[in-house]
Amino acid sequence: MNRPVNITQLEVGYDIPALPGMAASEIQTPCLILDLDALERNVKKMGDYARAHGMRHRAHGKMHKSVDVLKLQIELGGAVGVCCQKVSEAEVFARAGIKDILVSNQVRDPAKIDQLARMPQHGCRVIVCVDDIENVAELSEAAQRYGTTLEVFVEIDCGAGRCGVTKSEDVVAIAKAIDAAPNLKFAGLQAYQGAMQHIESYEGRKEKLDAAIAMVKDAVAALEKVGLKPELVSGGGTGSYYFESASGVYNELQAGSYAFMDADYGRIKDKDGNRIDQGEWENALFILTSVMSHAKADKAIVDAGLKAQSVDSGLPVVFGRTDVKYIKCSDEHGVVEDPTGALNVNDKLKLVPGHCDPTCNVHDWYVGVRGDKVEAVWPVSARGKAY
Amino acid sequence: MNRPVNITQLEVGYDIPALPGMAASEIQTPCLILDLDALERNVKKMGDYARAHGMRHRAHGKMHKSVDVLKLQIELGGAVGVCCQKVSEAEVFARAGIKDILVSNQVRDPAKIDQLARMPQHGCRVIVCVDDIENVAELSEAAQRYGTTLEVFVEIDCGAGRCGVTKSEDVVAIAKAIDAAPNLKFAGLQAYQGAMQHIESYEGRKEKLDAAIAMVKDAVAALEKVGLKPELVSGGGTGSYYFESASGVYNELQAGSYAFMDADYGRIKDKDGNRIDQGEWENALFILTSVMSHAKADKAIVDAGLKAQSVDSGLPVVFGRTDVKYIKCSDEHGVVEDPTGALNVNDKLKLVPGHCDPTCNVHDWYVGVRGDKVEAVWPVSARGKAY
Repeated sequence: MNRPVNITQLEVGYDIPALPGMAASEIQTPCLILDLDALERNVKKMGDYARAHGMRHRAHGKMHKSVDVLKLQIELGGAVGVCCQKVSEAEVFARAGIKDILVSNQVRDPAKIDQLARMPQHGCRVIVCVDDIENVAELSEAAQRYGTTLEVFVEIDCGAGRCGVTKSEDVVAIAKAIDAAPNLKFAGLQAYQGAMQHIESYEGRKEKLDAAIAMVKDAVAALEKVGLKPELVSGGGTGSYYFESASGVYNELQAGSYAFMDADYGRIKDKDGNRIDQGEWENALFILTSVMSHAKADKAIVDAGLKAQSVDSGLPVVFGRTDVKYIKCSDEHGVVEDPTGALNVNDKLKLVPGHCDPTCNVHDWYVGVRGDKVEAVWPVSARGKAY
Repeated sequence: MNRPVNITQLEVGYDIPALPGMAASEIQTPCLILDLDALERNVKKMGDYARAHGMRHRAHGKMHKSVDVLKLQIELGGAVGVCCQKVSEAEVFARAGIKDILVSNQVRDPAKIDQLARMPQHGCRVIVCVDDIENVAELSEAAQRYGTTLEVFVEIDCGAGRCGVTKSEDVVAIAKAIDAAPNLKFAGLQAYQGAMQHIESYEGRKEKLDAAIAMVKDAVAALEKVGLKPELVSGGGTGSYYFESASGVYNELQAGSYAFMDADYGRIKDKDGNRIDQGEWENALFILTSVMSHAKADKAIVDAGLKAQSVDSGLPVVFGRTDVKYIKCSDEHGVVEDPTGALNVNDKLKLVPGHCDPTCNVHDWYVGVRGDKVEAVWPVSARGKAY
């Protein structure tokens, strides 16, 4: 069922936006493009950071959903493996030969648990999160059915307000149940503070992370008391990885967006008050769009609308230009304010999407560009794997 | 290049959410489900309306992007063909044997124009919109290259504020250029008022449409004066089709969302002040989602987040329940307020998406349900066809 893509059978402008070797000017829009130089610099930088701070970096595959980007993160960035949010997504990475996979989420549906329990047969370590003691028996039963081992994190809700338990006594109770369950292994803690990642000020984010770290330390101490010291304590995102790295309790990072950047993350500030897309990370992901109508003198209509992006975190920003502004988004159109009439029909713009994760999920391909040339075309391997 | 789907080769929960014949309870979530009874009633109702009012109904395929849904609209609803917004999308319908296709949009990129000019070779009528006289020569040249005929609408911006000309003299000038151009045929007017469709009050919508109709009548009169009476005057959506039908100048409707309904359209009112999803149309499209965590007593976490929908027009609404409410959406999670603890892990909810078009575009499949059985599984045939 692993279907390799034979790229030469694909039709440009119908199946695929470009082919390797093409001039960048020939790319069909709208599509996602990656500035490969910027991407490689981001990946290497996070890898260097993690290594220098003694942290494992488990790259978040839910952001890019791409086997090729993940392999770059492993080979160039020293990532130890991947985390992702869905079983079907994890299976894409398992089938591609990735050896260390965390489903950083709860899995409760019987068919999904069954699929997860078979996944180690691909030859990979598989970790899953639990926030309900009843889930432990379900996972154990399925793993016994296939003679596999599932590793399990207890998920702590350290501020995201979604899944996860909030009391150390619950962490201990679930960890003990995992430890006692056949074919399960207690592997550590999932403690990702998602809600703070987009707080603009460094101090505001630090305050939330300090609270999270205190919760995690309390849970680790309680676990150690019963002889269940966690092997891994995992969390951290693009807006917080330095806090987890300095915590003394986390040993694994889960950053994802740093590799591509987006407009919403770009707006947050580093400790010196600078936007993180102005030095810390580079924009490597863009929606390439073309002007398709300019019937009004002060408005250019471009071909990237809601079917080419998600606007949940705001509109995209035109990269590298201050003379034009993307002001409105409908299904297949974007309205770009063009007060000086700078744009002509068929001109192309690079848009920094508001939010990279759900934007990548509406596209089938990444067009990797270096200079003026299309160097690579990579499938968004796990696009649509929402199960 | 037309690749039929062999549905039996697909793995449930990895490639596909369900297979025909399954019990509805076995469907893997999150996914789109269609209530086939409701869908058929909507489709038949619009068909009956158009027939009774002497209007052609060109169903908008950009909404569902599905050959199967379109065929239902043609066979059961008497639709004359399809309109859609992109060349790649149109080609999906052309390859599927649809005979009357309108690209209700501008096509300016040379590669896209080339593809469009080849499309009549599939044996279909192909119509495209123009709002810039320079585009006429581009289209004519491409059609001559392939010995095909492209039919052309002049697009009037009658209030949407995107593509389209606003002066009747410009309409006439472009129509004359089309009429004179080899391998082009002037076919009529595109005059879709998109901006008013979601105004809540009937009177508010009527006021905008009255202005649009006045513009269109002026343009038609100007065209008749130069002997270019338009064969087709096309427009109208789910919030306006009765205005165009009563206008005496439009003869073709382009409604799409009526077939599925969504939460944003559902809120608008008919002429008696009733919501249009409470009588005029039925909700036929849902995102099926499961509770995956309930670690907090008053909050259920469900598995449909931003990767399962677009929230550009607001959050989804839980169908048929007033005791629970979808209050927050992140990438892979939805937070459902559950003040009475009514929900359990693995319970399923039907969500009415905020906006159907971009929500359908993130899914690969429609699961057609009748009663408790999966009756059909249809590909979202033109998903991702954004070029």
